[in-house]
Amino acid sequence: MFHQHELEILTRGRGTYSITREVQDFVRDSGVGTGICHLFIRHTSASLMLCENADPAVMDDLETFMQRQVPDGDPMFTHTAEGPDDMPAHVRSVLTQSDLNLPITRNRCGLGTWQGVFLWEHRTSPHRRKVTVTINGE
Amino acid sequence: MFHQHELEILTRGRGTYSITREVQDFVRDSGVGTGICHLFIRHTSASLMLCENADPAVMDDLETFMQRQVPDGDPMFTHTAEGPDDMPAHVRSVLTQSDLNLPITRNRCGLGTWQGVFLWEHRTSPHRRKVTVTINGE
Amino acid sequence: MFHQHELEILTRGRGTYSITREVQDFVRDSGVGTGICHLFIRHTSASLMLCENADPAVMDDLETFMQRQVPDGDPMFTHTAEGPDDMPAHVRSVLTQSDLNLPITRNRCGLGTWQGVFLWEHRTSPHRRKVTVTINGE
Repeated sequence: MFHQHELEILTRGRGTYSITREVQDFVRDSGVGTGICHLFIRHTSASLMLCENADPAVMDDLETFMQRQVPDGDPMFTHTAEGPDDMPAHVRSVLTQSDLNLPITRNRCGLGTWQGVFLWEHRTSPHRRKVTVTINGE
Repeated sequence: MFHQHELEILTRGRGTYSITREVQDFVRDSGVGTGICHLFIRHTSASLMLCENADPAVMDDLETFMQRQVPDGDPMFTHTAEGPDDMPAHVRSVLTQSDLNLPITRNRCGLGTWQGVFLWEHRTSPHRRKVTVTINGE
Repeated sequence: MFHQHELEILTRGRGTYSITREVQDFVRDSGVGTGICHLFIRHTSASLMLCENADPAVMDDLETFMQRQVPDGDPMFTHTAEGPDDMPAHVRSVLTQSDLNLPITRNRCGLGTWQGVFLWEHRTSPHRRKVTVTINGE
């Protein structure tokens, strides 16, 4: 039995946004006891991530790391028409995840104690992001 | 109901190859309305990627970025028997994806407007690549 | 029909640990002929990886590469309370995979000839790691 939803997230620009609660709510409402919850972001300049959910400094450090690895406005990039953060956003998306699968156990996503599900906005300006949630189980 | 196919792609060496149309054709022919389409590449020196499908410069820039991050012939590598591009190909595969799941909505992979599905060949010489496509839905 | 198991791996610190045999055993015992085997690691400082399974030098080179990309004790990191290898472990996890899906064909994970499934421990000290295995098929 498949359940499918669209989750919309309004970002305030570059940074991470927890979607753990929204995803757990979809799973609870589906009534599925054992199965898989699939998340898919329908964009190529924002991505999905499982990460430590306790200390905000972890998110800050991830952002610092990515900005050093894939600097905005790097002269090696030729796809620059949409701004200095656009091609880096594509690279950052490719280096992280566009889709995630989470196991469902006893009607909950069976995350580890310190795991959260995040949308990572890679563009510097606010965007409306769409994530398709597909739940399959029994 | 599971449908499984093998997709074979003959690459002309390093670069990206769109497989969006082939994947959408498998989904259409499956008759599945809502579900998941899973892609799995059976190699460790080529990978799968979701990326912007409009401007070819995006692909060129991704390639430039990867060649800078993981240079061919880097003296730090010891696994060199298969050539200077072999160990970089393994690293590039690990940094990207070996499998992807795409949501199926109304008998189509529900990609975003600008999203395409690509095989990324990381070896410099042509290869025959195999991708297992597994469709599950109702 | 869903089958779910928990796999526990005791690591001896940073490095890669093959779990191919354990995963194939779960698939064989499930009796599933065609389907998907999903692996999910319930931690944010260790990850999952598909990689070449023949030459141990490939694993050594991957480790060397990651240590250069994400150096332990890098002064850019502020999340340092758990040691110099903790924030790098989170970054390494984000750059690799927390979940993998493997196609099941004729009651086996349909891996390529040279593909193995590995847990990559990113912390320097030994840890007890949990991987949820969910098998779905017919």
